Amino acid sequence: MARHYVGIDLGGTNIKGGVVTAEGEVLHFESIETEIEGGRDHVLDRIAMLVGKVRDAARVAQDDIAAVGIGSPGPLDTKRGIIHEAPNLPGWINLPLAAETGRRCGYPCFLENDANSAALAEAHVGAGKGTECMIMLTLGTGIGGGIVIGGRVWHGADDIAAELGHVSVKLDGIRCNCGSIGCVEAYASATGVVRRALEALAEGAESVLEADGLTCKQVFEAAAGGDALAQRVVRDTATYLGAAIGSLINIFNPDMIVLFGGMTNAGDQLFVPVREEAAKRSFKIGSDRCQIVRSLLGAEAGVIGAAITAMQAMDEQQDTANLG
Amino acid sequence: MARHYVGIDLGGTNIKGGVVTAEGEVLHFESIETEIEGGRDHVLDRIAMLVGKVRDAARVAQDDIAAVGIGSPGPLDTKRGIIHEAPNLPGWINLPLAAETGRRCGYPCFLENDANSAALAEAHVGAGKGTECMIMLTLGTGIGGGIVIGGRVWHGADDIAAELGHVSVKLDGIRCNCGSIGCVEAYASATGVVRRALEALAEGAESVLEADGLTCKQVFEAAAGGDALAQRVVRDTATYLGAAIGSLINIFNPDMIVLFGGMTNAGDQLFVPVREEAAKRSFKIGSDRCQIVRSLLGAEAGVIGAAITAMQAMDEQQDTANLG
Repeated sequence: MARHYVGIDLGGTNIKGGVVTAEGEVLHFESIETEIEGGRDHVLDRIAMLVGKVRDAARVAQDDIAAVGIGSPGPLDTKRGIIHEAPNLPGWINLPLAAETGRRCGYPCFLENDANSAALAEAHVGAGKGTECMIMLTLGTGIGGGIVIGGRVWHGADDIAAELGHVSVKLDGIRCNCGSIGCVEAYASATGVVRRALEALAEGAESVLEADGLTCKQVFEAAAGGDALAQRVVRDTATYLGAAIGSLINIFNPDMIVLFGGMTNAGDQLFVPVREEAAKRSFKIGSDRCQIVRSLLGAEAGVIGAAITAMQAMDEQQDTANLG
Repeated sequence: MARHYVGIDLGGTNIKGGVVTAEGEVLHFESIETEIEGGRDHVLDRIAMLVGKVRDAARVAQDDIAAVGIGSPGPLDTKRGIIHEAPNLPGWINLPLAAETGRRCGYPCFLENDANSAALAEAHVGAGKGTECMIMLTLGTGIGGGIVIGGRVWHGADDIAAELGHVSVKLDGIRCNCGSIGCVEAYASATGVVRRALEALAEGAESVLEADGLTCKQVFEAAAGGDALAQRVVRDTATYLGAAIGSLINIFNPDMIVLFGGMTNAGDQLFVPVREEAAKRSFKIGSDRCQIVRSLLGAEAGVIGAAITAMQAMDEQQDTANLG
């Protein structure tokens, strides 16, 4: 029986791929450009090409790959393997990505949302290894999320669960891109951090920061360097995140909340006030239980999670076959 | 094999009990006073007495009761059947309620949180029948909750999940009894409704309401009668609830959210603006999916849910025995 899986992490700029063992170990990993400008079929061909490429580079036999998992931006239909729409992949409307990839590479293919894939990997072989309930927040341009319960992703009724960036923390807050009000993403994403820093600068407060081309990283660096305005922005970021995390602790009583993404490079500068704020805003038993930690897996998380998705899907098919 | 279960719903004022079939049908239901002033042993004896009483009244043979489930205020340890502490049952600290009741009535006994019990009943035989993910909010003096996924209560790591009254909706809001800030309970519980109405009255706004002895019911009645101040208070109640529910929709992508408790008697007066507000604050697919409805079961919910708890616990023991 085949003992390896290929995980693919599909993004608008790069396609990452890796051969992953049943234990979640990456045997070979690489990243190629998506070449989105080549069109849909070209990208599908590149995905299939990458599957073969990483398999050969890992020196794994053709029939020793059991299945391929693909992590993709959504919204999507994981059961049917269809991308409904992908903001970074223009024109990919209702594309049967799993079937199209399967046809090209000859393996059974399965689809998962990219944030869910990363969360799944983290829960199985990363920071959340051994947890029964792990929740991940991906801090980037936006804020995404993944909920893993008993080793499985919680998908919800329509595959759109875990939109954790759109937990509303401020009743009378600003309007979010999603249309709702006061979402944590509107304040604590990299975009939100820069927006709040620019607002503070516009009010004329003194700071080493310059409005022109300001980045989230610059704000955290200035705060670390003692800049008062930047420190206030970072402290508020922790407050917004801590409010959302406090609610998640009271809702799930989870074992762990993992933060993922560039902003977590700030380390204690972010984690210390986030933990403080989350503890203030949740029940003590739940807050004492729930570790709030940085993700361990980095760039390979999506690939590992996609492979685990394929593994779980094959196991389910096997179980169904045995029952049938 | 025994085909019936007894469900007990333990409160500070009353103990409700009922004989429930494996299909969740109540054969006989009754309520007795808790007589808390008689002390712990007296109350335990009364629980055991009620088990026998409802069994006999339902004309079910002694050996046709498989097990007893008890719904109780928490915090508690459902796995070990222990009440850690119960605000309405003074002095019940770390009481092994399941074992003590079992010793007295001769049946295997199992414990569940009272809000979880009600949610479990609603998911199995009430409004949520057939749902994969149903979330209940109990609107009373406080706001409690229950999360039912795949027919099972989600307990979390320490049996304190689903503290849905303590989802924070207002970052810079008032301090809640729990110590956190801006919890939905602080605004939209019956207590919160009265508090906000009193604040509005104190500001001197005209209203038919009188501050002295004001109740939540009076506020809703005055609103229905056209009182502008009361209408504002009710509208704001819906906004607070809708904000929490909108976040729950984005987190879980659930099939249904059930509201339970006296406040739901207000019907459309409450549900129409709550649905409106929740839709405004969640993704359209999730909001279209999620029905927001009133509970169907009323006073018997806790008893039915406690019986289902016992049923599920016995099934699990059976499964474990079969595997062992």
